[in-house]
Amino acid sequence: MALDPDRLFPSEQTTRAIARQLFSTVEHLPIVSPHGHTEPAWYAENAAFADPAALFVIPDHYIFRMLYSQGVPLEALGVPRTDGGAVETDARAIWRLFARHYSLFRATPSRLWFEHAMQTVFGIEERLSAANADALYDRIAETLGREDMRPRALYERFGIEVIATTDSALDDLKHHDAVRASGWKGRVVPTYRPDAVVDPDRPGFAEALARFFELTGMDETYQGYLAGHRARRAYFKARGATATDHGHPSALTADLAPGDAERLFDKVRQGVADAGERELFRAQMLTEMARMSQEDGLVMQIHPGSVRNHNGPLFERFGFDKGADIPSRTDYVHALKPLLGAVGNDPSVTIILFTLDETAYSRELAPLAGHYPALRLGPAWWFFDSADGMKRFRETTTETAGFYNTVGFNDDTRAFLSIPARHDVSRRVDCAYLAGLVRDGRLDEDEAHEVAQDLAYRLAKQAYRL
Amino acid sequence: MALDPDRLFPSEQTTRAIARQLFSTVEHLPIVSPHGHTEPAWYAENAAFADPAALFVIPDHYIFRMLYSQGVPLEALGVPRTDGGAVETDARAIWRLFARHYSLFRATPSRLWFEHAMQTVFGIEERLSAANADALYDRIAETLGREDMRPRALYERFGIEVIATTDSALDDLKHHDAVRASGWKGRVVPTYRPDAVVDPDRPGFAEALARFFELTGMDETYQGYLAGHRARRAYFKARGATATDHGHPSALTADLAPGDAERLFDKVRQGVADAGERELFRAQMLTEMARMSQEDGLVMQIHPGSVRNHNGPLFERFGFDKGADIPSRTDYVHALKPLLGAVGNDPSVTIILFTLDETAYSRELAPLAGHYPALRLGPAWWFFDSADGMKRFRETTTETAGFYNTVGFNDDTRAFLSIPARHDVSRRVDCAYLAGLVRDGRLDEDEAHEVAQDLAYRLAKQAYRL
Amino acid sequence: MALDPDRLFPSEQTTRAIARQLFSTVEHLPIVSPHGHTEPAWYAENAAFADPAALFVIPDHYIFRMLYSQGVPLEALGVPRTDGGAVETDARAIWRLFARHYSLFRATPSRLWFEHAMQTVFGIEERLSAANADALYDRIAETLGREDMRPRALYERFGIEVIATTDSALDDLKHHDAVRASGWKGRVVPTYRPDAVVDPDRPGFAEALARFFELTGMDETYQGYLAGHRARRAYFKARGATATDHGHPSALTADLAPGDAERLFDKVRQGVADAGERELFRAQMLTEMARMSQEDGLVMQIHPGSVRNHNGPLFERFGFDKGADIPSRTDYVHALKPLLGAVGNDPSVTIILFTLDETAYSRELAPLAGHYPALRLGPAWWFFDSADGMKRFRETTTETAGFYNTVGFNDDTRAFLSIPARHDVSRRVDCAYLAGLVRDGRLDEDEAHEVAQDLAYRLAKQAYRL
Repeated sequence: MALDPDRLFPSEQTTRAIARQLFSTVEHLPIVSPHGHTEPAWYAENAAFADPAALFVIPDHYIFRMLYSQGVPLEALGVPRTDGGAVETDARAIWRLFARHYSLFRATPSRLWFEHAMQTVFGIEERLSAANADALYDRIAETLGREDMRPRALYERFGIEVIATTDSALDDLKHHDAVRASGWKGRVVPTYRPDAVVDPDRPGFAEALARFFELTGMDETYQGYLAGHRARRAYFKARGATATDHGHPSALTADLAPGDAERLFDKVRQGVADAGERELFRAQMLTEMARMSQEDGLVMQIHPGSVRNHNGPLFERFGFDKGADIPSRTDYVHALKPLLGAVGNDPSVTIILFTLDETAYSRELAPLAGHYPALRLGPAWWFFDSADGMKRFRETTTETAGFYNTVGFNDDTRAFLSIPARHDVSRRVDCAYLAGLVRDGRLDEDEAHEVAQDLAYRLAKQAYRL
Repeated sequence: MALDPDRLFPSEQTTRAIARQLFSTVEHLPIVSPHGHTEPAWYAENAAFADPAALFVIPDHYIFRMLYSQGVPLEALGVPRTDGGAVETDARAIWRLFARHYSLFRATPSRLWFEHAMQTVFGIEERLSAANADALYDRIAETLGREDMRPRALYERFGIEVIATTDSALDDLKHHDAVRASGWKGRVVPTYRPDAVVDPDRPGFAEALARFFELTGMDETYQGYLAGHRARRAYFKARGATATDHGHPSALTADLAPGDAERLFDKVRQGVADAGERELFRAQMLTEMARMSQEDGLVMQIHPGSVRNHNGPLFERFGFDKGADIPSRTDYVHALKPLLGAVGNDPSVTIILFTLDETAYSRELAPLAGHYPALRLGPAWWFFDSADGMKRFRETTTETAGFYNTVGFNDDTRAFLSIPARHDVSRRVDCAYLAGLVRDGRLDEDEAHEVAQDLAYRLAKQAYRL
Repeated sequence: MALDPDRLFPSEQTTRAIARQLFSTVEHLPIVSPHGHTEPAWYAENAAFADPAALFVIPDHYIFRMLYSQGVPLEALGVPRTDGGAVETDARAIWRLFARHYSLFRATPSRLWFEHAMQTVFGIEERLSAANADALYDRIAETLGREDMRPRALYERFGIEVIATTDSALDDLKHHDAVRASGWKGRVVPTYRPDAVVDPDRPGFAEALARFFELTGMDETYQGYLAGHRARRAYFKARGATATDHGHPSALTADLAPGDAERLFDKVRQGVADAGERELFRAQMLTEMARMSQEDGLVMQIHPGSVRNHNGPLFERFGFDKGADIPSRTDYVHALKPLLGAVGNDPSVTIILFTLDETAYSRELAPLAGHYPALRLGPAWWFFDSADGMKRFRETTTETAGFYNTVGFNDDTRAFLSIPARHDVSRRVDCAYLAGLVRDGRLDEDEAHEVAQDLAYRLAKQAYRL
């Protein structure tokens, strides 16, 4: 299987040569990873990863959902049940099952990421199959025991300059403190993600809110609640955070009169808000968070549009994040108007928008980001964090928003080993896109080189204030 | 005009060579046509086709709608009026009119299909024009009289292994019986399409429902109605059916409590259901049909999203299927939740989804099919059963759903002569897509060969249980 | 920077050679510009353009919105404030600011248009930068003083055969009269755009309506109002108009019973119509305008779907057309049904549809235009008047609607110097698309040549009855 050194480059020779040349100048740039989901404990404890199944299969919903879609029970893949039911615990059996279904991943990003890790981290150039499953399992398992496979060593080997984690508003960030106290020179920063205390529709909201007030010691009023957020943001910022992150069902924002917002909060706090009021509360909070960003300088990330836990029966057995979060149509133009009316014209604010609805790229997102000083477009996300998805992102946003209203790439992953692979894909796809622009006379070659650097490294660092 | 042997292949030489190589291995595979609309009477009676206009123009809404869009009256094209008005009956005059407007079809799939039939069936390599219209008419007309131009002979010449027809729930399937009784070895299977007795908004619903109860002898209750469907499905299955087919205005599904469903049915049966209730009834019936599929193993096809008979004045004169069915935005993520909650996790069920809203491919359909074991994606349909449409289908579904949550190709046509042409186009486009993946290092060449076979032949056969 | 003679052509050599050959036959065809926004006063008065900033920056919302999106205040760019606030008046300072931010325009259409004008009009082949800003300013300023840089001379140099302006229903068209009286042989025709007296939501509607009745002398009844439109249309037509133009928030149309329409008009006239009624009135007026087109033969243009003045705070300071009009999802299939029921089957009527929602191209617009005799599709518009936007337009409409239900290209611009550049881009993109069809065997080369001519020249002239 050995990775093709020209992978993801344009088919036509002249353009391919330009892409190759561009890529050679960005291939080894440091990795800036401002929006990730790796565990801070990894860097704090620096323990070895357990086994091949625990590394590649059990925690990766890209992998297990594909097998599930073809009839493989999640239990057989070792995915833990929240109801206490039994699941497979034999890592080798799980790995074999994955290997036997490996052809399902043909032409998917998971395949690209997996093989990049296999080759660059484990030195494996064979394609996984039922036949070699055991041999490869042994080889990976053996390698995982080595000192240079610990999280900190990999961080350094991957050339990571800074990595952000995503952390609950209630988190004490002790792992972040431990990392800093350890004297290790890696830079791991938290991100303030308050969804659990902002979204009344999330299971456990009431408890989370109670804990939030307890933790911050504020009055249980709207003003106390806002002050609590300010305090927690400051706590995060003091530990290196430069951004907040907000995952809402829709992009709806609101900018209510103070009295109305207070009354709404009271209903939410008392658990008597109806569906419309709960949505309105989330909407109001996006604008409040944007205002706080105006005050404290934290960059704000919004990624709306996912219908979480679509599969009811599965959710009951396995809980969150099991590959059953499905995108839906998402409006931005009407939804964001209140927030943008409040802070959109302030160039000191940075709001980074993501989408799972690609139709919004050219129709709404590029026009909005190509106008409002506070807006930037996040990269192709989740299902679209793929070679074709990234290509469509550039093709449908650049002509209206240019390159400089986008923020380069972030990898958005829990899968540590896939980080270099994802940046590799992104850099290749962007260089391929730029090469096409050079080839068809829309961009000079010296400019393409500069833009390649910007997209691979500079823009992310700058947009996230890292 | 002679067909270009490299048609629809990528422009770049290396990629083109890969595509050509892939295609050479699937070009002559048998045709599996699991979702078609040819007339069962053709195979039963095996009569000659009438004349060039009756073959290519009068029944083909792709052809006559394009001429109509440029001001040619349907009457002049011999399209029969339902109100008894006079239409052109001179086949040669109709053919000439088509020939005179032939340039309208430039770069359309109709053109590709037509010329494929002209060359491979009639040996004609000239481009149709006003100048050669008469000569070509004569040549086709003469050929049509030959024994080897009868439906059964063409079925064999085309390399069809099995073809499904689409049949009303009220159909006695006598032509299917006749085919089987004849001893001819062709395999023609029916498909259960109950829209006429499921959709209260269709003209003639009340009569159809009465006839349905009469035919099945069931009680006029909801339970009787469901039992009637079970009986008719069994009748179809005994005659070779492996699938059902459902064309609804939207993808809405429901899973009502039994009492509610019964009350709803009573209102529908009495003709007093309002628009919302009629929609709800269709929604409920999709879930009931999915449950029956769970029982009897028939594959379920859903193709929603067409606004039928958009052109009121035209509908009054010409009736159904006159090129005035227009797609509209279609939601899947919310609409399918009830049905998927009921049967979506059962890997023994196969539900094949189609769409006329391409925005759903990457946003909703691929994520759903990449998760639920019961779901598969049908190929690019109707307006998108075209080279570019098929390409977009692969480009926007593969990265999330892979190849194996799709079902290969089906031709969805009434136009018998276009069947080989459509499979030819599909195989070429898929090979072109695969060649691109090989060229840019995303797929190994041996895998591409296997996938090409799967897409051209194996997946359709397997998904439709043929 | 010197423009690449092969710009926007396909990367692959064989296809590129076909595109080059096709383009060579259309490159110098006359420009037909049936939907433009240049000032009629320019042709009437034939005065010199003021300075480089006034020519390229201050009036061009493509340019200043991009700088604004990156934090440059509009005041610093000399954009006039409607509230009387001070703005930069030093043209050279504005130009320098533009030059310093020139890299923002990488890979945008603005860049392509600007450089085309720089090279072909001013003979400048250097890329604008902070370093050469002053030198280029001087060179352009000097050139602008020359006689051959006056509007009429440029009209002739650009090879314009006819250009339409867009004019309020209340306009006396005196500049058009002056042009005709001058004996100059250029053809400048007005377009009837009645939005100001049709859309009750526009600021100043009541005054505009009063002025409309005053001007036409009709009764202040619905019949008088319609008669007023008929009179104004005739006035425009007598001055060369061949078309009307309608920019509505949505594509909604209605076809009310006469009494209902009268009552609706009375409420609108009295300013007591609610939001739904105001929308319904716009909807009704589209159908009335279509009926008038049936009577007087004026071509009707509809371009819906823009949320105007999205940025409230900015609108208060700067007013209309400041780059803050954002597209939104637009339905056509349901919205246009009433209008199409009234006139859609009449081949003597021409209604040209535009969109800012690209998802409608393949799903709704191509199927509608591929059926209704009265419908034609306008070219890729506004944000999509770009190389990639035009390519997507062809790729998603041609297979269903063909080429002949589209109307070639129009430039839709206020920026006089960008007119040749825009037609150049369009002709290149269309030739590139056609070359691809030839290369992959979907179109014969002789046909591609004919279609290239049609798209570059003939179709616009014919559709707009020029």
